[in-house]
Amino acid sequence: MKITFIQTGGTIDKDYPKAIKGYAFEISEPAVKRIIEKLNPNFEYEIITVCRKDSQDITDEDREIIFRTCKKLKNDKIIITHGTDTLIETAKKLSDLKNKVIILTGAMKPEKFLDSDASINVGVAIGAVNVLKDGIYIAMNGRVHPLNKVKRNPETGQFIES
Amino acid sequence: MKITFIQTGGTIDKDYPKAIKGYAFEISEPAVKRIIEKLNPNFEYEIITVCRKDSQDITDEDREIIFRTCKKLKNDKIIITHGTDTLIETAKKLSDLKNKVIILTGAMKPEKFLDSDASINVGVAIGAVNVLKDGIYIAMNGRVHPLNKVKRNPETGQFIES
Amino acid sequence: MKITFIQTGGTIDKDYPKAIKGYAFEISEPAVKRIIEKLNPNFEYEIITVCRKDSQDITDEDREIIFRTCKKLKNDKIIITHGTDTLIETAKKLSDLKNKVIILTGAMKPEKFLDSDASINVGVAIGAVNVLKDGIYIAMNGRVHPLNKVKRNPETGQFIES
Amino acid sequence: MKITFIQTGGTIDKDYPKAIKGYAFEISEPAVKRIIEKLNPNFEYEIITVCRKDSQDITDEDREIIFRTCKKLKNDKIIITHGTDTLIETAKKLSDLKNKVIILTGAMKPEKFLDSDASINVGVAIGAVNVLKDGIYIAMNGRVHPLNKVKRNPETGQFIES
Repeated sequence: MKITFIQTGGTIDKDYPKAIKGYAFEISEPAVKRIIEKLNPNFEYEIITVCRKDSQDITDEDREIIFRTCKKLKNDKIIITHGTDTLIETAKKLSDLKNKVIILTGAMKPEKFLDSDASINVGVAIGAVNVLKDGIYIAMNGRVHPLNKVKRNPETGQFIES
Repeated sequence: MKITFIQTGGTIDKDYPKAIKGYAFEISEPAVKRIIEKLNPNFEYEIITVCRKDSQDITDEDREIIFRTCKKLKNDKIIITHGTDTLIETAKKLSDLKNKVIILTGAMKPEKFLDSDASINVGVAIGAVNVLKDGIYIAMNGRVHPLNKVKRNPETGQFIES
Repeated sequence: MKITFIQTGGTIDKDYPKAIKGYAFEISEPAVKRIIEKLNPNFEYEIITVCRKDSQDITDEDREIIFRTCKKLKNDKIIITHGTDTLIETAKKLSDLKNKVIILTGAMKPEKFLDSDASINVGVAIGAVNVLKDGIYIAMNGRVHPLNKVKRNPETGQFIES
Repeated sequence: MKITFIQTGGTIDKDYPKAIKGYAFEISEPAVKRIIEKLNPNFEYEIITVCRKDSQDITDEDREIIFRTCKKLKNDKIIITHGTDTLIETAKKLSDLKNKVIILTGAMKPEKFLDSDASINVGVAIGAVNVLKDGIYIAMNGRVHPLNKVKRNPETGQFIES
């Protein structure tokens, strides 16, 4: 088994800047790298960075690059880490891709936080990618939703069955 | 979706005793509880403790109790956390159970460790239990193996395809 | 021994907002509370919140309140957690306070981060407050500087001897 | 300022073995190394390993080596990390050393644990070593005790004033 991880940015990859007068978080190395190291994985993998953006800043051009990156991959098992605010929008742009399993995930707290959900969310995506044959899925809050059956609860932020 | 988690003990649940002259680790509250809290889950769950043992100390009687606990559950999605040394033996005792998905997982480092694989392993099991219909599986090292196709590499400790 | 901890905000207390479309951090419960719980302390303590601000937003009015809070305390061992950008300015406002040991500290990474310096910085301040008799000090980067002998390296952000 | 850290072992440095059928902990690389990296220190330091033992296994020969290691150091600021069970015994063997500040510390939970007291304890020792002139001290539970005024509470395990 081989998994291709694609970094696009989002909360999962946020770190805290070292600079003086730094106010905000910044998007850093892919969290997936550190998560996989803890796992001692029995699968091949690669990590590709497409962009490092808060998902509110992801543009149609970025989504086009994500689409083409997935399309030209020979590997058929893909996990995309993404900010949660526009995760469903990006997933929709990928819906024409056939013969691949593509699972999008992210986190509500940066992986660098002690109480982050990043490791478990990436785990859920890996568990699902082991088993699923093809299609576009979203793995958040412990659930694996097919793209056509997911929406976000605007109040809680949870991804739920639509 | 509802998941029943069953605690049996093992490294995943090891803590460090507070007592004076305490030399060793001891098995404590189920790590799954803390992992699920971080996840903000969108599923129902319950956690049942069958025993709190290092897996080298799990007896045939313990395995019989695990079997009967699974059998009488109405819920058909079960994740068992277990020490890795005899995880496959316990899984084999469950192979007569039908119409349920049972996934066994554990950890090489206690969940209380900064560099633990516990959260991601439980995540892999949750991802797989979302998708699989029935059968007995082992989720370790990022792979989800059906019971009849798994063995352990005696040198690396990894669970691999047999 | 009794220590009074005063929270003013700053990086040490930053958390990541749970809200949807939240871009930035927010200042939350005092990190000192969680740090002291890990320590199993053999001293009395209290934690007072004066404000919860990034130190660039601390005003002269805030500094006046910090001054008066310290002045009216009967306890003579005070540790103030503060953002690093204006930590020295706040310390200077306290220089008229006599017969008290006041140590200001903070962090370059929020205490909620895995690789935070918060616990060790607060530890340094506690170690110094055990021993010092009176005066205003800054505890950062493993050093305890008297207020009249400290400056910040504008490039590295380290607090160094002036 | 330069600090010499001496590793002797103890809970602070305990890790979890990767081996199959490993039941217990092992003493690993000095935790101080990882703690200092987080701190971004503004002091020189070196780390010397004398032994890697649970403190119940520290012998008179080990204590003799610790004594001679401290004695021949040109540096006068020394922090020794040590298991807590015989920490006071080792400190007593060092009481003839003059013109040096020697602070012994340790931890109740390994530094690799999420809820460890290691970072803060080492911080307390560093804070005290900044300020103290000479003598043998024990830094635990947030207190810095001179050797002749410390004992251990046999029930709680806390180091308290004698």
